[in-house]
Amino acid sequence: MDQPIGVIDSGVGGLTVASELMRQLPKEQLIYLGDTLRCPYGPRPKEEVIQYTWEMVEFLLEKNIKMLVVACNTATAFTLEQLRQKLDIPVVGVIQPGARAAIKMSQNMRIGVIGTEGTINSKAYPKALQIINSKIRVNDWACPRFVPMVEDGILSGSQALKVVYESLKPLKDKNHIDTLILGCTHYPLIRDIIQEVMGEHVHIISSGEETAREVSTIMGYHKKLYNGERVPQHKFYTTGRLDVFEKIAKIWLDQSINFVEKANISKD
Amino acid sequence: MDQPIGVIDSGVGGLTVASELMRQLPKEQLIYLGDTLRCPYGPRPKEEVIQYTWEMVEFLLEKNIKMLVVACNTATAFTLEQLRQKLDIPVVGVIQPGARAAIKMSQNMRIGVIGTEGTINSKAYPKALQIINSKIRVNDWACPRFVPMVEDGILSGSQALKVVYESLKPLKDKNHIDTLILGCTHYPLIRDIIQEVMGEHVHIISSGEETAREVSTIMGYHKKLYNGERVPQHKFYTTGRLDVFEKIAKIWLDQSINFVEKANISKD
Repeated sequence: MDQPIGVIDSGVGGLTVASELMRQLPKEQLIYLGDTLRCPYGPRPKEEVIQYTWEMVEFLLEKNIKMLVVACNTATAFTLEQLRQKLDIPVVGVIQPGARAAIKMSQNMRIGVIGTEGTINSKAYPKALQIINSKIRVNDWACPRFVPMVEDGILSGSQALKVVYESLKPLKDKNHIDTLILGCTHYPLIRDIIQEVMGEHVHIISSGEETAREVSTIMGYHKKLYNGERVPQHKFYTTGRLDVFEKIAKIWLDQSINFVEKANISKD
Repeated sequence: MDQPIGVIDSGVGGLTVASELMRQLPKEQLIYLGDTLRCPYGPRPKEEVIQYTWEMVEFLLEKNIKMLVVACNTATAFTLEQLRQKLDIPVVGVIQPGARAAIKMSQNMRIGVIGTEGTINSKAYPKALQIINSKIRVNDWACPRFVPMVEDGILSGSQALKVVYESLKPLKDKNHIDTLILGCTHYPLIRDIIQEVMGEHVHIISSGEETAREVSTIMGYHKKLYNGERVPQHKFYTTGRLDVFEKIAKIWLDQSINFVEKANISKD
């Protein structure tokens, strides 16, 4: 099974998922496509997100991928089910892995979820949690200031701490959650600050780590793991500016990327 | 999908897996079969373990299970592949989930594994770890004194601490593992002592918790999760003495079991 794993995202956030895939499955080759030109998907109408996601998927299917990872919370919420129905390769999204990991970690079954307004309004996390255990109390909370801050490169320091503190205070004060799901792929970059604000007793669940784990599970189950020895050559595609993508990727992956090309995917 | 999940084990160790399944998937109904009469499987020849495991599987298939969990490390090592080939329901063992969780947790990719002599000699954990990442350094170590101690009900106190300390000292001293897999379903009952002996910096991975998580993943993926509301009625079967099983189950599950019956499965 030497084909690559395909990873799609509305932009660069999915790089946290790609980074964990590279760490947890170091023999697997990735093809990443970030639709940076049309990012963010969060505020777009559902039909548009579905159309854009299919355009990304068709681009990757031509690259002969063995599995598809939807590394974007909004795209997962709107398209996962139809992708699974229509594709004959395994498809994994970012929402269920985070939900399952939270259920495993939580002792009091009071689980917090933070994300963009789009993801929080979709109620995808409460649904994924409560279909498994209807007694779980979910406190979900939109943090609209986090993505712009992370994209501006503000990942630590007093300004970041202030934004995180102000955003999370209502969630921290009113509830007794023991587990918090980072329901946005940008948030792992400010994980340490979120942990500091929430306190050491709260388990932080990163959907990226958990998604990589479930990709491993599903691929192992379907006998799709690469079996030999190799140093994989990952490929990155972006619909936006190459230089910007390359620069951000270097920071987010903590390594330079060797292959990055422009992808033209729009059918409009 | 209101059928039960089948769980097999050579005895009572798999109750730690059952307990986590009940916690993480509270709507799912379990049918547990423990072959306490012929326990332990660890020292038995491979062919015998395979025969006994198939006898358990056939008993559960007649109960119309939707999924099979092999909650025994020895049985997983010897039969998982053939069960997956021959059964048309999903089959999950305890080894791969523990391995994948360790890969997720470890930062230095030095992973320890403890288990019975049978499991350690089978090299099933090193194989499962290194097929994914051949650079992982695995230190595996048999702890033959743990199972008899746990089965005698010695789960805390100075005697337990002494046995755990003496058993783990060579593993602790010589290596720099940051993650330790409990490769035996009895060990979660002495997890706190193992943590104390290994030190707070070592992540302890319980195969039971991780297996329950992967059962959830695989069932979600195959759309086999129960979808409505119910309080499931679990059923327990044992090939050995009912009163002994019932007493141990109450301690291990931290609740009484309502249904326990004798199972006659031997074809000899």
